[in-house]
Amino acid sequence: MELEFVKWLASQSGAAPPISLGIGDDAALVAPPPGRELVVTTDMLTDRVHFDLREHSAERIGYKALAVNLSDLAAMAAEPLAALVSINVPRNESATPLPRELYIGMRRLADQFSCPIAGGDTNVADGPLVVSVTALGSVETNRAWLRCAAEPEDRLLVTGALGGSRLGRHLDFTPRVNEARQLHANFEVHAAIDISDGLALDLSRLVEASGAGAIVDLDRIPVSPDAIKLAHQSGKSPVTHALGDGEDFELLFTAPKHVAAELCRLQPLGCRITDIGQITIDRLLQQRDASGQISPLERSGYQHGV
Amino acid sequence: MELEFVKWLASQSGAAPPISLGIGDDAALVAPPPGRELVVTTDMLTDRVHFDLREHSAERIGYKALAVNLSDLAAMAAEPLAALVSINVPRNESATPLPRELYIGMRRLADQFSCPIAGGDTNVADGPLVVSVTALGSVETNRAWLRCAAEPEDRLLVTGALGGSRLGRHLDFTPRVNEARQLHANFEVHAAIDISDGLALDLSRLVEASGAGAIVDLDRIPVSPDAIKLAHQSGKSPVTHALGDGEDFELLFTAPKHVAAELCRLQPLGCRITDIGQITIDRLLQQRDASGQISPLERSGYQHGV
Repeated sequence: MELEFVKWLASQSGAAPPISLGIGDDAALVAPPPGRELVVTTDMLTDRVHFDLREHSAERIGYKALAVNLSDLAAMAAEPLAALVSINVPRNESATPLPRELYIGMRRLADQFSCPIAGGDTNVADGPLVVSVTALGSVETNRAWLRCAAEPEDRLLVTGALGGSRLGRHLDFTPRVNEARQLHANFEVHAAIDISDGLALDLSRLVEASGAGAIVDLDRIPVSPDAIKLAHQSGKSPVTHALGDGEDFELLFTAPKHVAAELCRLQPLGCRITDIGQITIDRLLQQRDASGQISPLERSGYQHGV
Repeated sequence: MELEFVKWLASQSGAAPPISLGIGDDAALVAPPPGRELVVTTDMLTDRVHFDLREHSAERIGYKALAVNLSDLAAMAAEPLAALVSINVPRNESATPLPRELYIGMRRLADQFSCPIAGGDTNVADGPLVVSVTALGSVETNRAWLRCAAEPEDRLLVTGALGGSRLGRHLDFTPRVNEARQLHANFEVHAAIDISDGLALDLSRLVEASGAGAIVDLDRIPVSPDAIKLAHQSGKSPVTHALGDGEDFELLFTAPKHVAAELCRLQPLGCRITDIGQITIDRLLQQRDASGQISPLERSGYQHGV
């Protein structure tokens, strides 16, 4: 299978500068644009953990596998350069269109963000479909958004709306690459992370990395219609879903108070920006309800491998 | 599991410049040294395909998973910079020392080649152990060894000895990173590839990429003691094993005639360099036996996914 597939892939990969050598050699050559440094991230998706091949099309799975990696680049304010893709194809699917459909889904997103697929590895083995993507991006040198850069008194902001992504959005979201680059170019942002495992859990990572704490105003959290729909089934509140469901792939970031106010007023992105709380100098993770009552915020969210 | 493991990993990763940000953010920042471009490769190993967890220790498997990637860097004459590692841990192994043992094996090699593990992803799922590694390296700009650069009349050279790697060498080999860098700095090498799938098959890839052919002198092929041992069991000839077994992870490269002669005379590397044939202008892949008889060379070797 491989040679034919690799040839097909080479014809599909859309290799273009800054990739001077794409699929078909031992490795790919990548040069970040002048004045920029390279950003690299990797995420592996597995059948029955991150998707379900019985329910979801291979195209959507391929799309998601690249999208989660581009979301990590966005969280660093990086612009995509290229991706490498390794796939473990289940033996009983090796003769089916599955591998190509995966790539077609990936390619749709790769084209949208000028991120050619520059190499990879395909194995056939017993066991589930595993898709491992490494995404390369670039960001202006020393200007990447880090998790550790939140400052006391920063406001806490989030793009889009949260919760209930398992109703379908976790497969079809658009990574916030363009929004991140627009914010990065025009506004002072301190720390950032993408919400992959849940607002509460990812916020706890951001404040822990920054040696700070946070208070989240529960009634300000933008709740998605999917969270409301899911709440009818689950008996939990919509805001509980927004805090803990994860796979929103929205940006959670911090900025000085006056920048946050300007962002909320101007709304410069195609998606909504909401101020949901503030960074505190103490290291507590807290929530404030509509009545002003403050209590500890549970680190709910998706814990890998638990 | 993840947070504790990620913390442990961060303490283990040995992050150092040129990695300005290691494990624990959304992505890693990597800057190639001035005058060099980045080389990126990825390989995924799966239980029962590339190793057997019932027979091989997790440390050896971790070592191999990084080593095959460093071998790809060596084939481009690149120096390792960093690696990203994604692991799919079988559910019944998630509470065992397996993940740490994998990293300990990887770390042994990472330290040897100053290649810090700069990030990754760990999942627990039903199904086999899958280890996906992306290795980053750097090479002087426009000076990477490519598969496509063989020239007619070039001699065909190989490091080390071939065949029978399945007796153990496929897990414990040292990737030819230092040898490649030494050759790259001091000798005119045209095309190169590492022998992962078998001399015959990888040679066919090199000559195909170069739009050329080759004649291999069968009696010059350096045959490993393992190939001889295996030949006693298999009934095949040792040279058949050397041509088709694969996973030798030696360098196959081409150089002008006078350079090849100098290399064979000087033997500047810690391992033997052998001249095994020549590149031809026609596009045929041929073998010459001890009597001088020329016949087609079968593209034997490991075909992925067949």
